[in-house]
Amino acid sequence: MLRTAICDLFGIKYPIIQGGMAHVATAELVSAVSNAGGLGIIGAGASEPDWVREQIHRTREMTDKPFGVNILLISPFAKQVIEVVLEEKVAVVTTGAGNPGPLVPGFKEAGIKVMPVVASIALARRLERAGVDAFVAEGMESGGEIGQITTMALVPQVVDCVKVPVVAAGGFADGRGLVAALALGAQGVQMGTRFVCTDECIAHPAYKQAMVEASDRATIITGQSTGYPMRCLENKLTRAFIEKEKEDISMEEIMEFGVGKVRLGLIEGDLEWGTLLAGQICGMIKDIRPVKAIIDDMVASAEAIISRLAKDTTGG
Amino acid sequence: MLRTAICDLFGIKYPIIQGGMAHVATAELVSAVSNAGGLGIIGAGASEPDWVREQIHRTREMTDKPFGVNILLISPFAKQVIEVVLEEKVAVVTTGAGNPGPLVPGFKEAGIKVMPVVASIALARRLERAGVDAFVAEGMESGGEIGQITTMALVPQVVDCVKVPVVAAGGFADGRGLVAALALGAQGVQMGTRFVCTDECIAHPAYKQAMVEASDRATIITGQSTGYPMRCLENKLTRAFIEKEKEDISMEEIMEFGVGKVRLGLIEGDLEWGTLLAGQICGMIKDIRPVKAIIDDMVASAEAIISRLAKDTTGG
Repeated sequence: MLRTAICDLFGIKYPIIQGGMAHVATAELVSAVSNAGGLGIIGAGASEPDWVREQIHRTREMTDKPFGVNILLISPFAKQVIEVVLEEKVAVVTTGAGNPGPLVPGFKEAGIKVMPVVASIALARRLERAGVDAFVAEGMESGGEIGQITTMALVPQVVDCVKVPVVAAGGFADGRGLVAALALGAQGVQMGTRFVCTDECIAHPAYKQAMVEASDRATIITGQSTGYPMRCLENKLTRAFIEKEKEDISMEEIMEFGVGKVRLGLIEGDLEWGTLLAGQICGMIKDIRPVKAIIDDMVASAEAIISRLAKDTTGG
Repeated sequence: MLRTAICDLFGIKYPIIQGGMAHVATAELVSAVSNAGGLGIIGAGASEPDWVREQIHRTREMTDKPFGVNILLISPFAKQVIEVVLEEKVAVVTTGAGNPGPLVPGFKEAGIKVMPVVASIALARRLERAGVDAFVAEGMESGGEIGQITTMALVPQVVDCVKVPVVAAGGFADGRGLVAALALGAQGVQMGTRFVCTDECIAHPAYKQAMVEASDRATIITGQSTGYPMRCLENKLTRAFIEKEKEDISMEEIMEFGVGKVRLGLIEGDLEWGTLLAGQICGMIKDIRPVKAIIDDMVASAEAIISRLAKDTTGG
């Protein structure tokens, strides 16, 4: 049985976490992942607090297993969303884009575990002192907002610099990746793109299908000049966005150009003019499947790989 | 004993290959790696054929183990270097930057194994049909010339699309990475940066020390606009180069600006105005050590990690 420190920490069966993606990580996906033995995470994104509360309640109707909420600290509703999460006492909070350090004591008092997403070791070192429970170390092959360091280079460096458990993210979609993460010293994996390409995810079917058909080189990084680089499938929007970045226009104009585009891509399925957030591993994803099948296959495959490695090593 | 298909293919003890880096992968480093049970590879770079022949002869004086030559197909001396390699019948040829397909029959006739370095699956698929013996799948966390896809995303996709053995490169420096590569389906790892930071490598001590002191975020990519992106340590040269890329000057002027800078950095140790090729994993490298110690520790650590994973999996 594949069980790690992260399973004990969160009270989950398998060390497989679903990234808290805005718009698409709703109660449907979250409950499916938690029911299958992983940890589902609601993506609060820039949503209003009532929406987040509703997702929490709906998730609880569909599962009695632990789940989490990802809080976008730069959201205009961040403060109210934090209030909701504290009241509802979800099991785990993950955070991106921002420093959750000052919030840690409040969450801990409410019995909520805190697991920030980090893309370099400097922030990890500082946040460990603030008392967080674990980290997601996320490589730049991830979809959505990204850093500069790849998973293979980042994960062992974060593992070496903190004492709490580390979850690896970026480039994971199967049991091979799960074993690779464990070998690097992580205690589990977080996956986004793979969990979007599932029956349960409410993302638009055209967007899911675009990822299934995507090649290894299908993604591109936009927003390098804005300081908020994002990885998504290349399309008319990304080409127009990158042209705009080259022009001598204000940062506000560039940011304004992106408003509403993520929803347009992920929920409305506009493949040309929507932002189609996707990790590089989309090139390996060839099907849309039920969440439970993905998790069961990952675990079985990981166990088989470990057995094979052990056999090869001792048999020579 | 950690033994894979790549060990049998090349007649080496451990599945650890040293990248054929221009300027610094000379007979000293190559013989040390091959003597320690890995596969050393001479970096022909843009060197003249006589220099390559001399390196081959000197390597043979220092080891009776197999070794290889990396041929830079865009070198002005590529054709003559290929002649030297065919005459000298080295064990293995690796290639970067270019399509070695038409050369495969000649090498095979001379009994030389061919292992191209690929950064995406399209070229891998085409070259397998040309009859190559193996691939190095190299992620964009590597030092020097790079592609777009990270090791974690690239390696399993290459493994899935070819039948010959795959060696993983980019982001590797210890036993954790070796096990991660094997988990992803690779048959070994190729390392560059880690082997530069060794006693045997002729690279300038100041350059080695700069990598030992580098943080996780120390590298940067130059030359995105030239179509030849290179990863190196950020310094005065990279900042000036990136400024030049933004200006409206010709590609020739930009390329001209880079001439001689790699030698200046790697051999002369100019930390400000030399190109200091380095992979992202330099942040994890904390010492300059003998090659044999690195390889022995990697293998012992990899075996220990596999034992631990097997114990954790069966013991739960």
